[in-house]
Amino acid sequence: AGDVKAGRTKAAQCAACHGIDGMSKLPEAPNLAGQTEEYLVKALNDFRTGERKNEMMSMMAKTLSDADVANLAAYYHSLGKQ
Amino acid sequence: AGDVKAGRTKAAQCAACHGIDGMSKLPEAPNLAGQTEEYLVKALNDFRTGERKNEMMSMMAKTLSDADVANLAAYYHSLGKQ
Repeated sequence: AGDVKAGRTKAAQCAACHGIDGMSKLPEAPNLAGQTEEYLVKALNDFRTGERKNEMMSMMAKTLSDADVANLAAYYHSLGKQ
Repeated sequence: AGDVKAGRTKAAQCAACHGIDGMSKLPEAPNLAGQTEEYLVKALNDFRTGERKNEMMSMMAKTLSDADVANLAAYYHSLGKQ
């Protein structure tokens, strides 16, 4: 499983849209706080491979390593249990 | 905007995986409670058109009307502010 602290550092690049607290800053960006880890990993990997497409996320996800994906999923999952 | 009460009725068919309270029952199914309405509408419409694919959701979304999509998004958005 991912490293929450490393995920928090990496999440700086996600925060403008998804919030550093995982609460959306834009209506088209989903809340991520407390999301299931498995779903978050799949979403990021689908954007990385192109299986899922979104103008912003397809670009952002391409910069992520497997470890980044695991860490980001662990971090956002850890936040604010709904 | 959608009708929350009609959305709750329609959400009976979503509840096995996403919970009637919007909290995931399966690791691969995302939590929906309090999710932004615009994101939920886009997700359902992307599954309807085939822009986004998922074995379960592609099948479920095909049964939904435009009103169902609006109502479900309003309902799950209304739940459990994170």
